[in-house]
Amino acid sequence: MIACLSSNLPNLHSTPTAPGQTTSEPDSKPQARKLKSSPQLNRWSRARAVRSGRKLDRLGHRSPQSSVNFKVRDRDGVDLEPERISDGEDNVEAMEGKSIYMVSDGTGWTAEHAVNAALGQFEHCLVDRNCAVNTHLFSGIDDVEQLMVIIKQAAKDGAMLVYTLADPSMAESAKKACELWGIPSTDVLGPITEAIASHLGVSPSGLPRGAPGRNFPLSEEYFRRIEAIEFTIKQDDGALPQNLQKADIILSGVSRTGKTPLSIYLAQKGYKVANVPIVMGVELPKSLFQVDPEKVFGLTINPLVLQSIRKARARSLGFRDEIRSNYSEMDYVREELEFAGRIFAQNPVWPVIEVTGKAIEETAAVVLRLYHDRKHKCSMPRISKRY
Amino acid sequence: MIACLSSNLPNLHSTPTAPGQTTSEPDSKPQARKLKSSPQLNRWSRARAVRSGRKLDRLGHRSPQSSVNFKVRDRDGVDLEPERISDGEDNVEAMEGKSIYMVSDGTGWTAEHAVNAALGQFEHCLVDRNCAVNTHLFSGIDDVEQLMVIIKQAAKDGAMLVYTLADPSMAESAKKACELWGIPSTDVLGPITEAIASHLGVSPSGLPRGAPGRNFPLSEEYFRRIEAIEFTIKQDDGALPQNLQKADIILSGVSRTGKTPLSIYLAQKGYKVANVPIVMGVELPKSLFQVDPEKVFGLTINPLVLQSIRKARARSLGFRDEIRSNYSEMDYVREELEFAGRIFAQNPVWPVIEVTGKAIEETAAVVLRLYHDRKHKCSMPRISKRY
Repeated sequence: MIACLSSNLPNLHSTPTAPGQTTSEPDSKPQARKLKSSPQLNRWSRARAVRSGRKLDRLGHRSPQSSVNFKVRDRDGVDLEPERISDGEDNVEAMEGKSIYMVSDGTGWTAEHAVNAALGQFEHCLVDRNCAVNTHLFSGIDDVEQLMVIIKQAAKDGAMLVYTLADPSMAESAKKACELWGIPSTDVLGPITEAIASHLGVSPSGLPRGAPGRNFPLSEEYFRRIEAIEFTIKQDDGALPQNLQKADIILSGVSRTGKTPLSIYLAQKGYKVANVPIVMGVELPKSLFQVDPEKVFGLTINPLVLQSIRKARARSLGFRDEIRSNYSEMDYVREELEFAGRIFAQNPVWPVIEVTGKAIEETAAVVLRLYHDRKHKCSMPRISKRY
Repeated sequence: MIACLSSNLPNLHSTPTAPGQTTSEPDSKPQARKLKSSPQLNRWSRARAVRSGRKLDRLGHRSPQSSVNFKVRDRDGVDLEPERISDGEDNVEAMEGKSIYMVSDGTGWTAEHAVNAALGQFEHCLVDRNCAVNTHLFSGIDDVEQLMVIIKQAAKDGAMLVYTLADPSMAESAKKACELWGIPSTDVLGPITEAIASHLGVSPSGLPRGAPGRNFPLSEEYFRRIEAIEFTIKQDDGALPQNLQKADIILSGVSRTGKTPLSIYLAQKGYKVANVPIVMGVELPKSLFQVDPEKVFGLTINPLVLQSIRKARARSLGFRDEIRSNYSEMDYVREELEFAGRIFAQNPVWPVIEVTGKAIEETAAVVLRLYHDRKHKCSMPRISKRY
């Protein structure tokens, strides 16, 4: 329900505000109506002031998505009710940069994924802070009134709308409302659903996630993924070398080459993954050389990058341990990488994947391409599934 | 490179072949050219026969995505060279059901995600097996020759193409080739990228992942996600109750309510998650009641569903243990759920989320909606990020 309506404080990824940044002005939007002071207005103003103080606290210490180095003016309440409350805090309410509203009658993860992928095309200006972007994800929006409130707010914010609305009447309403309010909008789900419908000769159900009649089935595949995740968690960091036989994929590499997050990413796709850390001076488990070498993948990284990762890691863990003080020193880093390199050279069947400059999902794509390619020789590498 | 070209055996999610299933016939495609027998043909035929035997072995035992119950005619090699090899195995080469080719010059995960979301609109016929769908993901396709080979094969397969090609000339080539070859195609990345470009007033870089000039930055946010994943793994299954203070989110519930995969899913989004299992007869850690109750979420499930999950779990673990034989018995299941229910009733601040019939990402969306809503009162719940 829509009670008193203010936005969440944006979660921050980098220092967002660039000098010279102008706030976008909506083109053809209803004008903000200025209201006289009222008890309700004062109450909301006070509430916003309190929240403002609380939010700074929370943002600095608790929010998982805030950056330690952020500098931003606090954005307090944005009123989603049709009458916009205008008071002395008007300029604070305006968000820095451009906003993207992502609206879904389901989870919203598809819209988020698509927007993230597209934003990858603007890294050059995001990183320079020449364009600042805020995204706001609204999930479970399955009634048209909530949709309209969001769209009206988007209009006030000069935002664009990206939506995944499985219900065709909701999608139609979104499209029309955006046209009416002059908001750029993109339907991420409609075109591909229609294309598949046409291809299969079947009409889409129009049911969003969570709708009656659309229950998630507990299939073999579901159980297998759960099993893969649980296996991989137990296996993390060389915990159970005797289980290497059961793994589908084995990752080996020195500390901080990304084995843990990569193994988890792959596990979520259904692969049982075991990690075998390479540590100078520590013998590798014998079972590593007894398994099918085609399932072992080596990870390597640029020494400078590894050093900076290790320094960051040591800082965050508060390392003072004398023995570990080598951990992030350049000589040690190089030696350890060379040690790993010699192991990889002795096991030439293992592909060695350079992880420098790659996101986890990129390395995962490389691993899986190789994995499937090796399973099925003489193919254009692909990952195939049957539904 | 494209050496001898055959497809990977599809990975199976369910028993795919329905009676009466017709194989799709391409509409306007180049006809298969029949070649006379040749040494190369014989070699490929033998290779396919061998692979056929090998694949059945692997599929039954090793592929993480094969179903134990599958029944399918083996699909062997599909030749991706322009001359289609035709031999006695022609009908085996035709894939059951309709194919969707997903092509990306990056990881392909966006295309896969979008296709999965859209296929959710066809569950009613996928589950009945009235429409069978095969997907094939081609990632890292960053040169136009590979693209053309894939498109030609899609044409032969009567497949549709879904692509995320950041390079505009590749996207243009894909579009034109699909028109030329009469393949339905959907550009998943282009429309949203153009919309954002127009909104920001900035041109997209046109650089796919992995291209020079597009290195993944090691940001604060990246390190924080790694930390969240590592925290959550160490915390799994009540491992370290003293660390509940450090968690952003705490999940509690009886065994098999999905705590582990849910915690991992949330961790990948940057949240430190701790799991506290509720076990009848076992005291909950005191620290659970000392932390901010607003970060605790209870999970519950329908008893019949829980029982079937536990039975499946016990089977896969080979449970014979007398003590644990209760684990999946209905009375015990009900008792344990009631036990959990009483704990939840005593802690009314904890939301209790029903996970029955929900995929992990759906439950995650509910948790995060509540989480962000509680952090920022009086809002239309949303998840906001700053780029």
